[in-house]
Amino acid sequence: MAHFTDVDAHSTFASDKMKKNNLFTTSRMFCDVYCFEPGQTQTGHSHSGSDKVYYVIDGQAQIRVGDDERTMAAGSAALAPAGLTHAVTNPGPQRLRLLVLMAPPP
Amino acid sequence: MAHFTDVDAHSTFASDKMKKNNLFTTSRMFCDVYCFEPGQTQTGHSHSGSDKVYYVIDGQAQIRVGDDERTMAAGSAALAPAGLTHAVTNPGPQRLRLLVLMAPPP
Repeated sequence: MAHFTDVDAHSTFASDKMKKNNLFTTSRMFCDVYCFEPGQTQTGHSHSGSDKVYYVIDGQAQIRVGDDERTMAAGSAALAPAGLTHAVTNPGPQRLRLLVLMAPPP
Repeated sequence: MAHFTDVDAHSTFASDKMKKNNLFTTSRMFCDVYCFEPGQTQTGHSHSGSDKVYYVIDGQAQIRVGDDERTMAAGSAALAPAGLTHAVTNPGPQRLRLLVLMAPPP
């Protein structure tokens, strides 16, 4: 496992759906960069025993956690605690990148 | 526990030493923003049962993990796995901010 990585170099997008790019994985957590073209969505879902943090690197993110939805700019972060439904949409017009940390891996 | 936060609004610096500002804490992880004035350091240390990720938000970070040291720019990330000594210095001339995720909390 490498100890250093360039997030920009791992930021690949896909035209058909949002793309998850792994940066680090251990037994205790994983760290990904999620890349969304405008209009792409991560459908609502939940994890029974894992907490997730989203950090908006660039672009805009419409993030829903439970019943609470916000439009978040770069420099914002969201927590999706275990058991709460969460979803993400890129409302555009720019590309969206999220740094994502989940503990433990599901 | 709030589910949304503005990292910039939590980014406070201290003149005497680097400042840790908490964003989220759960039983499984914490997420902080660490703020370093030029020249400030987080001394080498390790955690026996927790993994840590550093993400460089802005500025430059000299990060050491085990015997490997790199100077990292914004958009880079480092993993300090459990048991490995890690340290951070801001070589300047700008302020340094790191998003820090640790799982589980020590």
